[in-house]
Amino acid sequence: MTNLESLFLTPDNMAIDTDLYQLTMAAAYFESGINYPATFELFVRKLPYNRSFLVAAGLEQALHYLLNIRFTEEAITYLRSQSPFQKISDAFFDYLRRFRFTGSVHAMPEGTVFFPDEPLLRITAPIIEAQIVETYLLTIVNYQTLIATKAARVIHAAQGRAVVDFGTRRAHGPQAGVLAARASFIGGCVGTSNVLAGYKLGIPIVGTAAHSFTMTFDTEMESFEKYYQAFPDHTILLIDTYDTIEGARRATRIGHKLRGVRLDSGDLVSLSKQVRQILDAAGLTEVKIVASGDLNEYKIADLLAQGAPIDLFGVGTELVTSRDDPALAGVYKLVEQEKDGVVSFKLKLSSEKVTYPGKKQVYRRTDEDGNYLEDIICRESECRGKGALIVKVVENGELCYDLPNMKEIQARASQNLSHLSDNYKRIENADQYPVRKSSKLEALRESVEDKLSRD
Amino acid sequence: MTNLESLFLTPDNMAIDTDLYQLTMAAAYFESGINYPATFELFVRKLPYNRSFLVAAGLEQALHYLLNIRFTEEAITYLRSQSPFQKISDAFFDYLRRFRFTGSVHAMPEGTVFFPDEPLLRITAPIIEAQIVETYLLTIVNYQTLIATKAARVIHAAQGRAVVDFGTRRAHGPQAGVLAARASFIGGCVGTSNVLAGYKLGIPIVGTAAHSFTMTFDTEMESFEKYYQAFPDHTILLIDTYDTIEGARRATRIGHKLRGVRLDSGDLVSLSKQVRQILDAAGLTEVKIVASGDLNEYKIADLLAQGAPIDLFGVGTELVTSRDDPALAGVYKLVEQEKDGVVSFKLKLSSEKVTYPGKKQVYRRTDEDGNYLEDIICRESECRGKGALIVKVVENGELCYDLPNMKEIQARASQNLSHLSDNYKRIENADQYPVRKSSKLEALRESVEDKLSRD
Repeated sequence: MTNLESLFLTPDNMAIDTDLYQLTMAAAYFESGINYPATFELFVRKLPYNRSFLVAAGLEQALHYLLNIRFTEEAITYLRSQSPFQKISDAFFDYLRRFRFTGSVHAMPEGTVFFPDEPLLRITAPIIEAQIVETYLLTIVNYQTLIATKAARVIHAAQGRAVVDFGTRRAHGPQAGVLAARASFIGGCVGTSNVLAGYKLGIPIVGTAAHSFTMTFDTEMESFEKYYQAFPDHTILLIDTYDTIEGARRATRIGHKLRGVRLDSGDLVSLSKQVRQILDAAGLTEVKIVASGDLNEYKIADLLAQGAPIDLFGVGTELVTSRDDPALAGVYKLVEQEKDGVVSFKLKLSSEKVTYPGKKQVYRRTDEDGNYLEDIICRESECRGKGALIVKVVENGELCYDLPNMKEIQARASQNLSHLSDNYKRIENADQYPVRKSSKLEALRESVEDKLSRD
Repeated sequence: MTNLESLFLTPDNMAIDTDLYQLTMAAAYFESGINYPATFELFVRKLPYNRSFLVAAGLEQALHYLLNIRFTEEAITYLRSQSPFQKISDAFFDYLRRFRFTGSVHAMPEGTVFFPDEPLLRITAPIIEAQIVETYLLTIVNYQTLIATKAARVIHAAQGRAVVDFGTRRAHGPQAGVLAARASFIGGCVGTSNVLAGYKLGIPIVGTAAHSFTMTFDTEMESFEKYYQAFPDHTILLIDTYDTIEGARRATRIGHKLRGVRLDSGDLVSLSKQVRQILDAAGLTEVKIVASGDLNEYKIADLLAQGAPIDLFGVGTELVTSRDDPALAGVYKLVEQEKDGVVSFKLKLSSEKVTYPGKKQVYRRTDEDGNYLEDIICRESECRGKGALIVKVVENGELCYDLPNMKEIQARASQNLSHLSDNYKRIENADQYPVRKSSKLEALRESVEDKLSRD
């Protein structure tokens, strides 16, 4: 039989799920005898469209990668066969064979609210190690942070109504669906339709039925009855397959054990009001109305502003693709190196993409109630302890951090967001939260710039 | 040590990378004694923004899934523990334990150019099987088709210049990076930076170096020399770390073995022209200019219109997220069922989301040179053989199709696109390619609608 390719990642092949240039740079460093300690920081250059804050997510998967990265013999054989590597020494491939991440990692815990230019993750390791891990760290952190942030916006718009992730079918591939479920939960969703996310992460799983189920039976009522017989305590009926109002009337015949009805098309304001009346008139005041169908934070805000009596929103495509801005501008930049015990600070001067040198910390000033006043990006040596957002999570290649569970991560995000004033959380035209660089960090940058200009 | 969760898919857990409702519907069907043959079709409701055609991709991974889907004991135990399933019989879980896909699959071969409403994939199987596979099929086919289509647009804009996928770091997670590399190659990219895609699929891999590499050395020239020493026959130098023009002058010192220089920031029109002059003045007329930095089809068309002498485009974020429209509206709809030998045709009436009943074929009319004139979506029985786009790929759960390799798939896309007139391929304001339904299909829809209205 033909060997069908799944394109699944495994612990054995994730090391080469990277840009080729990480490995050519690694080889060039190796052949040049360069592998002294270097520090890279991962930060977001600018906020996506309409976003006013970010929610950190993806650290656990980043740590899984760092602590398990290996190059297999097959991967090494493949690399050696590629023409660029023809003149690279055997010693480099021996190095890859023994490759382990031996460095240290500092990071903001998942669920932390943060802002552009603030380091989310910092890697200090021999430069070949620190360089090789760039691409994978970016892809795992960029995506989950993008989605946790989008979810937090949707939750904010929903004003206390429950929101569930329904997006797997439109996620960017099968793994993205699971990652999106995780990140959406961090951002405040109460559950997901993705069963694997439930199984792996303990996230509550939620589901109703599809139009095809209704269409399979001779009548809509028969489909309702069959679903109810199978799930007498968990029946949420999809009522818009033929005629939503008729569907609602039929649904009331299930009686008081009906949990909810779902609307997936049409004018949700008008339909939800009519359906609520039908349910209430039948004495089913406790039956919930679930709405879905290309919803996002803007539409949810609009539905609620118009008084739509919707209790739970299922949000799919718009959430898991972060549709109004589907990419996070996370970057991973060299900030310092240590050669023969001497630290040299690094920055990039060219054009619009200037960076700040040196290891950094972020200090968050709060008022006496814990509400956020401003963030100060400072040199690492300036700030430790209370108010410091970045903590050590890996030392010498070993985890030194108690991993929070999903509920704890979600609680951190929720608690962080509760301390961020509403004017910084509006889904459009939010104020810009104040973030400044410390005078010592600015001074360092100036001195490094001066030195580069003199050279 | 803490068990870090990778959220990787495996053949063992992919069955539950699905929406919960697929499994609740499965249970409700099972408990109702319903499992007669049903046919679902996967099609795209409407074109993404500015798109005028679609390029089919993802079938191989879809087939891997269908032919390998299994429910493990652990997954079954998890499901049984979930509250909705409390009253579901043991027999259903036994059914899941033995679950295999036993149906047949018809599909458009990967690389086929197609249009909205045309079935890309058709599943005929006992309805529980056909229903359970919906979510996963959608996520795998939606994403790759989205990216193959985006890539084809970028290739069209590049007017014969080479385009390479550089997008892994901004893809929606680690697997999306590999899927994007595959789909981009189908759409016409000459290679990818993703090493795993090269290893798994034989796609050419391409890489240069990052700014951090330049910054590591005391001088830019030293970084150029060290890279050249490691890769004497494959040196492409990134020249914009400090000052692009100075970088270009320094790069010329490498001499005739230099392969290319890369620009990643600034005004690419002006810079590429100046850099071309510097290279040419040094006699390096054969040295290529590579450009990258948030490029897309619109920017590439603009660069070329302004005469930028760029030979190869590295396209990342915009390609792998399909940034201007990051979701494909692929849906999977029940079109017919067979009960006791009697076929009943299915469609959904409610609101804007109307569907066509019955198994379909797509017939493409061409002129004598093979150029595409129009597509006709017809009933399956109306059209077989030449001009029919949909072929059988799986029968009774067994593959009955010679899988093409990546080059063959890419060639099909390229050949298909060459037969699609330029007016249908413009990156903005393209004409709408004519697609119509056959009179027999329209007649079937009317008769089913009539019957539903009478019921």
